[in-house]
Parts: sequence; structure tokens; C-alpha cells
Amino acid sequence: MTGPMSEDDLIATLFAPIAGPGALGLKDDVACFTPPEGCDLVVTTDAVVAGVHFLPDDGPEAIARKALRVNVSDLAAKGADPLGFVMTLALPADVTREWIETFAVTLGDDAARWRCPLLGGDTVHTPGPLSISITALGAVPTGQLVPRTGARLGDLLYVSGFIGDAALGLYVRQRQAPWIERLSDASHDYLLGRFMFPQPRLAINHVVRDHASGAMDVSDGLVGDLSKMIRASGVGARVELSRVPLSDAVRAAMRLDASLFDVGITGGDDYEILCSVPPLNAAAFEAAARAAGVAVARIGQVNEHAQLGAVFLDANGAQRKFARGSYSHF
Amino acid sequence: MTGPMSEDDLIATLFAPIAGPGALGLKDDVACFTPPEGCDLVVTTDAVVAGVHFLPDDGPEAIARKALRVNVSDLAAKGADPLGFVMTLALPADVTREWIETFAVTLGDDAARWRCPLLGGDTVHTPGPLSISITALGAVPTGQLVPRTGARLGDLLYVSGFIGDAALGLYVRQRQAPWIERLSDASHDYLLGRFMFPQPRLAINHVVRDHASGAMDVSDGLVGDLSKMIRASGVGARVELSRVPLSDAVRAAMRLDASLFDVGITGGDDYEILCSVPPLNAAAFEAAARAAGVAVARIGQVNEHAQLGAVFLDANGAQRKFARGSYSHF
Repeated sequence: MTGPMSEDDLIATLFAPIAGPGALGLKDDVACFTPPEGCDLVVTTDAVVAGVHFLPDDGPEAIARKALRVNVSDLAAKGADPLGFVMTLALPADVTREWIETFAVTLGDDAARWRCPLLGGDTVHTPGPLSISITALGAVPTGQLVPRTGARLGDLLYVSGFIGDAALGLYVRQRQAPWIERLSDASHDYLLGRFMFPQPRLAINHVVRDHASGAMDVSDGLVGDLSKMIRASGVGARVELSRVPLSDAVRAAMRLDASLFDVGITGGDDYEILCSVPPLNAAAFEAAARAAGVAVARIGQVNEHAQLGAVFLDANGAQRKFARGSYSHF
Repeated sequence: MTGPMSEDDLIATLFAPIAGPGALGLKDDVACFTPPEGCDLVVTTDAVVAGVHFLPDDGPEAIARKALRVNVSDLAAKGADPLGFVMTLALPADVTREWIETFAVTLGDDAARWRCPLLGGDTVHTPGPLSISITALGAVPTGQLVPRTGARLGDLLYVSGFIGDAALGLYVRQRQAPWIERLSDASHDYLLGRFMFPQPRLAINHVVRDHASGAMDVSDGLVGDLSKMIRASGVGARVELSRVPLSDAVRAAMRLDASLFDVGITGGDDYEILCSVPPLNAAAFEAAARAAGVAVARIGQVNEHAQLGAVFLDANGAQRKFARGSYSHF
């Protein structure tokens, strides 16, 4: 097939125009580029599936941005600079050329925004739902990857931005809860936007690299992801839940339904950075993040009680347990 | 979910054991490794979808090997050495743990065989068919990628191995043609094996790199892929179809149904290497391929008639035209 909507046609007319220099014009079976000198290569892969990671009727703009940004978020949290990405686009039969065109134009726009050019890909038909698998490549100076396992005794735990916006945004998107009706228009739109359009914290990737001992992006819920990081680091931690940064919109929603706090701190799709910072670096870390325009909040501290893992305390100092610490897309 | 069949469990028990050193034990969100010095990075991505690229009831062994090998084949054809791969595995609800276990063990075995270790991945559920998207990374000495666009006036066109085995093997797999009954058991099994288990020509990746001006793997049919390469190179070519290397099994099948020659040279899944070799390099290329244990056949020559593209001649010197020059998985 080489007519309209053939793979060759889609590549030549829609994807080649948004491809980066290493993509060889998407005219070969591979991408090829010289990796930056003195750097390690960082590779991450994340797929999104209609009906699982996004709603089937989300528009092509939102889907394109989410598919790319969940990967950029992983690079940012590791202190890496994006080099580019490859994509597998699995298209059901009912996808129109217009849909793909909007998807491609948006993807190109987002790729430029996150300095993560399209390098190549594969377009296949599927009898199943629309699925997008992206592999993003990044670089860090050799040996400077910020690992999930790096939290050390005494380190302070920080999280960027606000937690829980996207989890509540999913409710808003699905119009499934009574409190949504009573939310202000501004809060409604803000939460929806935070769910539909994740904001990878690429602005502080170097800040994390320069000052943090360990880091990961919060994609499956703060409680679960923090527990994972603490366990992977072989340490314990105390987290003060009252310090978890919440947006005005989440606070407004919590006034309508107090149970939403738990939804927010265990729900997915935050795409904020969680990191451990040695106390000596804390002031510099906070100042550098502020200078980069990203708020960071200190929410806890690493301790020696590895067998307890991460312990979450409420405002009264009582321990909270969570039945479902994290959101699983799986 | 962290119980049996959770993503965490599958990663820790089935995939971590087969992962390479850059995979960080699959305990982080990324893979990280130092790329080889003095090399360009080569990136390729290919997905396989049940019902499109393989039959839903192909076993996990065949599916694992095919998913990896179609990517290794692209690296080999570009003269690259594999560095590793990341994988998105989209699993329907009815996949069993046993299936995934066999898949993982086989994938580990094949990764070792092709020196292409697992670096990371993402496992997602899908309401659609089983799908596997693999991104393979490789390396070539800086500037030495063998491009699809490299064929030059006077170059000789070579193809490795045998053409058409897999296209006929697909018929055998589907038991859809009368000639299959009359094939010998040996031919039957050979053709089926060639369809189920592609053999990437990694043994001659350096031979191609040292001697060829242009190359690609033949995955969508020789006629179509050769036409693509000639067009991409901005040249013309004459191909003598009587020189296309055919296995004994394909010759036997052709004696039962002469139309199978066209099926073989336009059908997909050969995963042989097609390359253009300057005449001065031809003897050395042939000798080096022979030394590596891979047969190569000279099937044509590049000429200046770019406007004609690739011209295919039969044994009588008459031009053949093909309604459907290539197989599209799309």
C-alpha cells in the first residue's frame, strides 16, 4: 500500500516533517546519531493504551502530548537531557487521516517544546485499541544518573509541584463524582488540564542531578512511589502528610469531600519529581529549583528503619496506612 | 497490584533474570549505560501485533524470537552491532503466567544468542490483541552506518540467503493451499521454520559495513524493498530474477505451482540483507560473507536510469511488472 493512509504516505507527509536530524528523514529503517561525548545513555519506554491510560475519546492533541510527556518525565527525574524518541503507533481501522495529522502536528510541537525530537518509529494496524509506545533516549554526564536507589540516611525528601491534581482531574474528566458540580470553573479546568496535559519537570533535571542523591518521577501515586523508592534504597523514611503540596483546586475539592486527600496522594499521573537530597545540599537545591521556576516541598526525611519502609504521618503525628498505595495502569 | 501477575512481580521474577547490565536490574524507570567510544548510536523500532504480524496461536517461543529478531535484522543490515533492547509488552487479560514465563525465558535465550540484552520495558494490559513493540539499540563506528540511500552507479546488488521461504512458510502455517499437501515433510518443515523463526544475518554485519555502499533488510518483499532502496538512492537498476537465490523447498513448491515464484519475491518476512557493493569490493565481499558462513548472491547491478527505478527481467530478458511489489503489514 503506498496510496493515502499507507504507512509510507503517513511517514513522508506527516511524520518526516516533525523528525529530528538523527532520523535520516525517516527514509531508512533506523535512526543514527553521534551520542554526546562524556555521557551515559539513558533509555526509557512507556506505552499508553486507549481505555487504559487515556480515554478513547480524548483528542489527538492530548494523546500525543501525554504519550511523549510520560517519557520525558522519566528522563527529567533521572537528571537526563532528552536526545530524542522513537514511537510505535498502533492504529485501529477507524482512525482518520485528519486524526493522525493533528496527532503528528501536536507531537512535533511538543517534541520541540521538550527538546526531544522524533527519531523514528513503526506504524502498524491493530484490531485492538489505539496504542502508542514511546522509547525516549537521553544523556547524563557519565556516572551521574540519579538512581531510584540513592536515598541515604538523613536525606531530606522533596517533591516538586502539586500532588493529586491529576488523580482528581481523572474524576473530573469522567464526571463521576458529586463534588465536581460544586467546584468552581477555574478549579474544574485546572484539574482537568493537569490530568490531560502532564508537565514533565524538565526545568529542574539539572537541579536534581546536581543536588539529589536519588530520584524518580511520581507517576503511580506518591504513597506507592515513595514507598518503592525507600525500599529500593534499603532505608526507612518518615513522611509528614501535612507537608504534601496541594493546589488550591485540590484543597477546594477536599473541602467538599475530605476523602479526596487519599485519592490524591495514592492516585496516578502526577508526573512530579520525588527526590532525596542530602541536608548539606538542601538550601542550594531549594534555591536552584526556585530559580528554575519550579516549587519544591520538603515532605519527609530518610531514616535507618529499613524494615519499616516509608511511614506516613498525619497532622497529629499518627501513622496512616493505605490499602492501595499506588495506582496501577497494569 | 503487587501480587502474582502484577507488573512488579512479572518484572522481578521473569524479566529481571534475563536483563543485561545496563538495565539497572529493571529496578529503575530507565536503563543507563556508557555507549561505546567512537561510535554512532543506531536505533530501530518494530512492533508485532497478534493477528497482523503473527498468528494469535503461535506459541510464546516463536513470538518472542520474532519480536526480537525483526529488530536485530535491521541493525545487522545497517552494519551495526547490537547494544540491547527495550520492550513494551501489551498483554490481553487471558494471557497466563505460564505463557509469559515461556516468553521471557525464550526471549532471554534469544537475546543472548544475538548479543542484544534486555535493557528495560513497560508491561501494560490491553483490551486488544497481544502486541510487542521492541526498540533495539546498536552501534557502528562513527559515520559508518550503511544507509539505504547509498547505492551508486555500477554497484552490484547482492542478497543474502534465500528469498521467498517465509512467504511460502506463511501459506504452510495457514494450511491454505493445495500444493502444501504434496510437499515433502522436510520442505514443509523448512518453510514453516523460516516463517516462524527469522534468522537475522548478524554474522555478516561487519562484512556489509566493510564492503557495501548501501543496504537494508528485506522484510516486505524483495521486489518492493529493492525498488525502495533504488529509488531512495536516486539511481536505476536491472535485476535478473533468475539469479534470485531460492531454496530447494521453494523450488519444489514452484514445481507444484509455478505462481509461487511471484509469491516468494513479493512476499514478506525474508529478513535477508539486500546490499549494493562497488565492483572493486565484490570479490572481497563475497569471500568475507562465505567465510562468515552466509551465502550471498549477485542479482543485479545499479545503473543511471533513475527514472526507470528497479527493472526486473525474467530468464528471457523480458521485463516483469508486479501488481503488488511488496507485502505491507500495515
